[in-house]
Parts: sequence; structure tokens; C-alpha cells
Amino acid sequence: MPFTPSDPDFEKKVRDSFSRQAFMEYIGARLVEVRPGYCEIHVGYKKELCQQHEFFHAGVVGTIADNSAGYAAFSLMPADSSILTVEYKLNLISPGDGALLIGRAQVIKPGHTLTICKSEVFAVKNGIEKLCATSLVTLMEMKGKADMPAEDSLLKKDRKA
Amino acid sequence: MPFTPSDPDFEKKVRDSFSRQAFMEYIGARLVEVRPGYCEIHVGYKKELCQQHEFFHAGVVGTIADNSAGYAAFSLMPADSSILTVEYKLNLISPGDGALLIGRAQVIKPGHTLTICKSEVFAVKNGIEKLCATSLVTLMEMKGKADMPAEDSLLKKDRKA
Amino acid sequence: MPFTPSDPDFEKKVRDSFSRQAFMEYIGARLVEVRPGYCEIHVGYKKELCQQHEFFHAGVVGTIADNSAGYAAFSLMPADSSILTVEYKLNLISPGDGALLIGRAQVIKPGHTLTICKSEVFAVKNGIEKLCATSLVTLMEMKGKADMPAEDSLLKKDRKA
Amino acid sequence: MPFTPSDPDFEKKVRDSFSRQAFMEYIGARLVEVRPGYCEIHVGYKKELCQQHEFFHAGVVGTIADNSAGYAAFSLMPADSSILTVEYKLNLISPGDGALLIGRAQVIKPGHTLTICKSEVFAVKNGIEKLCATSLVTLMEMKGKADMPAEDSLLKKDRKA
Repeated sequence: MPFTPSDPDFEKKVRDSFSRQAFMEYIGARLVEVRPGYCEIHVGYKKELCQQHEFFHAGVVGTIADNSAGYAAFSLMPADSSILTVEYKLNLISPGDGALLIGRAQVIKPGHTLTICKSEVFAVKNGIEKLCATSLVTLMEMKGKADMPAEDSLLKKDRKA
Repeated sequence: MPFTPSDPDFEKKVRDSFSRQAFMEYIGARLVEVRPGYCEIHVGYKKELCQQHEFFHAGVVGTIADNSAGYAAFSLMPADSSILTVEYKLNLISPGDGALLIGRAQVIKPGHTLTICKSEVFAVKNGIEKLCATSLVTLMEMKGKADMPAEDSLLKKDRKA
Repeated sequence: MPFTPSDPDFEKKVRDSFSRQAFMEYIGARLVEVRPGYCEIHVGYKKELCQQHEFFHAGVVGTIADNSAGYAAFSLMPADSSILTVEYKLNLISPGDGALLIGRAQVIKPGHTLTICKSEVFAVKNGIEKLCATSLVTLMEMKGKADMPAEDSLLKKDRKA
Repeated sequence: MPFTPSDPDFEKKVRDSFSRQAFMEYIGARLVEVRPGYCEIHVGYKKELCQQHEFFHAGVVGTIADNSAGYAAFSLMPADSSILTVEYKLNLISPGDGALLIGRAQVIKPGHTLTICKSEVFAVKNGIEKLCATSLVTLMEMKGKADMPAEDSLLKKDRKA
């Protein structure tokens, strides 16, 4: 499925947005590839990302599945839009056992408002990729709301539970 | 729905398992309450957990939804069982905007093999809780495989991609 | 959650739309109750609706879960809008064993574009309701496209595979 | 993915089970192809299967998605097992507009207890197939409970709500 991005500068737009997500840096996620309608994110093993059996925590797997899908969809959207995940469903297929987690997402159906993606996560161990999770993700385009840096804002000053 | 746990020591079992999940500590998650068929997890705001608009990242929201459900289900299981998430579906309802994220999960249907939970995540801002996400989670009991500490193992020595 | 419908005539609008769905009549479904943000649909047992064990077929259960949610959401929408199911996720909790299937759906989050519903299906046997399935459903409002009768149309003349 | 069925007579087993589902006959569904880990079901257009715009009702689309997945998974299981759908998630991609609906399901991950399938539904109009829905389905093997005809049973005599 060859898709045409609305924004010729889509890769920069996606990379800029990714780099503004502090959580991606915190878990050591890297945006490895962006093509129109496709995105690939890698996360290297570190103990802090694990559950009790020293596999990648399902939360990390889900994070990568969702975020890869988000940026696959975002790659096709206009420069002045931003994107929201509406919902996703994730099947965990095998443990996140390996030194690297790879999320690969592909747009199945782009749309004016909603975009549907398939997203898979693989665990790589001794050079062998194994399907760890598969996911369907529904994303919404927020038109006229470019994905900009948050301003130094009320938000931060106002953090009390 | 009053559930009877198979293991009278269920709270200790759940807390021990939670404390072995390094990822919970890394994101600052606290196991606030465990009752038979119910679990509540809190995560305080910190910038490292955010997306580009300084809201909690959806990955954190999903992590809490899934993990609360897992421990709600685990609370009912025998001492010598462990638990796996089979799959979950998460609808993101509103942004994770607040100083605290609360995950609350409730068993809908306990079963010999599979347990189904409903899991909700709330964002708390200025004392007001707002529904941030709702989820359905399917979990599987692994009989005869107690949730034990990972041994100092091949696993760790063998981490290469 | 008390919701205010955009269309004061919402019940007529919902009933008219329901009565245009030939599949509802075919399976013997009745629209039993509509309130703002709520809908209840009943289907009586007949052998034609069953699977191999003479329980209601999961396809009927899913149909009722989705359609109850659709009309719960539609009840809140303006007169000149129609509605689409974007996606749903259904957990089958127990067999559709009984003389009556009841679908009950409730809006969780109404929205300008998307509405999220929770939908449950119960099987009634000897006067006892049992939860048969639970579902989360995402619906989209199609603004400015009223839910009208299909015209005698190209569509029908053009049916060839 | 070449799968090896546990039951060499898998096609007969699947076809026998399908033929016992009265709802399949009622909607005019035909089991067109069964291979190990794969199943294809067709439903021809008839007005009784439609929603208000004379497209196939989403309930029919969901039924086909789920049932194709069920029989794809069942094809791999031993002769003395039966199968249950645990849950599914369905994204409706485009209207069920056409003279024929085709469900195609493929096992992604077979397992001792749970099997995960991908299931797609296509609408065929003027010879052109269009993706109508995509689905992930989780199925459970019920060991030692062969999929047999329901006996003339209490069940039938006992149908009162």
C-alpha cells in the first residue's frame, strides 16, 4: 500500500514530535524508521523496563505498539494537524524476552478523521525476531492543532492532585 | 460482587509480585489497595512520564490499566499460580492531565483458566477525578507456576539482540 | 450520568432508524427501551439464531451488543446526524443459554465526533439473568447526514459480486 | 505459515460443526474453504441481512469475522476438542456494500489453550473486493469435549425466560 503524505516534510514532523515525548527518552525508545504510513520504534533491554521474570513489561510492549501506530498514522497527516489515540486492542503473543523490542506499525486505512493501523511488536534474542504482540489501533486527526511544544504553562504550575 | 480468594494470604502474594516488577518502581507506581477481585495502583506526575503536551503518556495509562487488572485477577488465584495478560482493549477517554493517575480494576468474571476484568484509569487534578481511560482485560492463570523471583539466570547472561 | 439529547424527539428518531434495519426484524429483535444515552434491545429464542449447542450464536450476541450501543449513542445526537460503529471489542463471558437475550448499552463518554459506550448482553433463563457478554464500542457521528430511508436506488439494481 | 492439524480429518470436522450452526444457514453463509489454520466463509446479499442503508448489517460482518476465525482455529485442534470464542475486536473499515461478503481468517498463533487469529471481511461489488472490516480474535480449546450434535434435550424443553 503506497500512501502519499499530506506533508512532504513528514519525517521531520514525526521526529520532532517523538523527540518531545519525554517518556520515549525515559524508556530509551528510538524512532528508527518513518515512511509514509509506516513507523518503526526500537527499545533496548534494561532492567528498569521489566516485569518479575525479567522480560520486557507488557506496559512497555503496549507503549511501543501504540506509539508506532500513532506515528505511522501521523506521517500521513497535514502539517497543521495533531493526532490522538482513540483506542487500541493488544494481544500478547509471547513474552518480551530479548535484548531488543521492535515496534512496527502500518496504516491499514487512512481517513479524513480516523485512521486504522496494525501494529506488531517483536522481541529480538540472539538475532532471532519473535512476534511478541499484535495490535489494532484507531487514531484521530485533530485538524488545525499542530503538534507543538507545550508552552511553559499553567499546566506545570498547577500540578496538584 | 464479593469474591473469595483461593489464597488467604493473597495480599502478600500480590504485593510481593508487584515489588518484583522493576518497571513499576521506574515509573513510580504504588500498589495502593488490594482486595479480593480488586486492585488500585497510583502513579504520581513526573515529567519523564509525559507525552509532548505534558500529559501522562498513553503508554503509562495503558500500563496502569493492564497492571491493575492483572493484580485484581491474581488476588483470586491459588498460591502456586502465576498470571499472564492475554489481551486488553483500551479506550482513551480524556487526556492524562493531572498530578496523579489512578488505576482501578475489578474482576467481572473469574474463571478456572481465564479471568475478565474491567479496568479504569482516572486523572486527578485539583482534587477532581476525571475518567481518562476504560479497558477490558483478559487474563490467564498459569497453574502450578508460582510467581517467583527470577533466578540469577541464563536470561541475564544471554542478552544480545 | 444524566445526558441531554440534542434532539427532543430522540426516541422517535431512534425507533424509526431501528425499524429500517431489516436485519433486526429478521432476527426478531425488539427495541424495548430508549432513554438519553441508554438503549435496550431484546431477542427471543428461536432455533435459527443458534450455534451447534442450541445456544444463541455469538454473532447474535455481538449484533445486539453493537446495535444497543449504536442506538444509545444515537439517542444523544442531533436530528440531522447519522451514526457509524467505528469498532467494538466483545468478551464472551458465558453461553447464550436462555429464552431471551437482552442487550443493554450505556454511553460512557459522549463527544462531538466520537462517543464511547459500554454494552452488556444478558441471557435470561427461568427468570434469571446471566451476563453473557460485555463490550466497549466506539461510535462516530456523521454530521449533516440524517439517517433516512435508502432511496430506491442504484444500489439495489447494482447487486452483483 | 504452514500449520499441521492435529486431526487429519480436520476438514470434515469443521464442515460438520459448521453445518450444525443453524444461524449460518439462516443468514445463508457458506463454508467455502478450510485449510490448516485458515477458513473462508461467504454470505450472499439479501435484504434481510441489511441495515437502513441497505448495506450488510455490521452484525453480519461481525458474525462472519468471528466464525471464520473460530473455524480457522478449530481446523488445527484435536478431534476430541471443541472451541469457544473468548473475545474479539472488530474495526469496521468501510460499509458492507456489495453482493457478497467474504470472511477470511488466518491463525496468527496456535496454542495449547488459546489460539489467536486475524480475521478480515471483504465486500465484493462488481467484481472488486474491498476491505470492510478487520479483526483480532482470541479462541479457547475445550479439551475432551468434542463438538457434537446437541441431544434432543432438556435445553429445548426448558426454554422459558
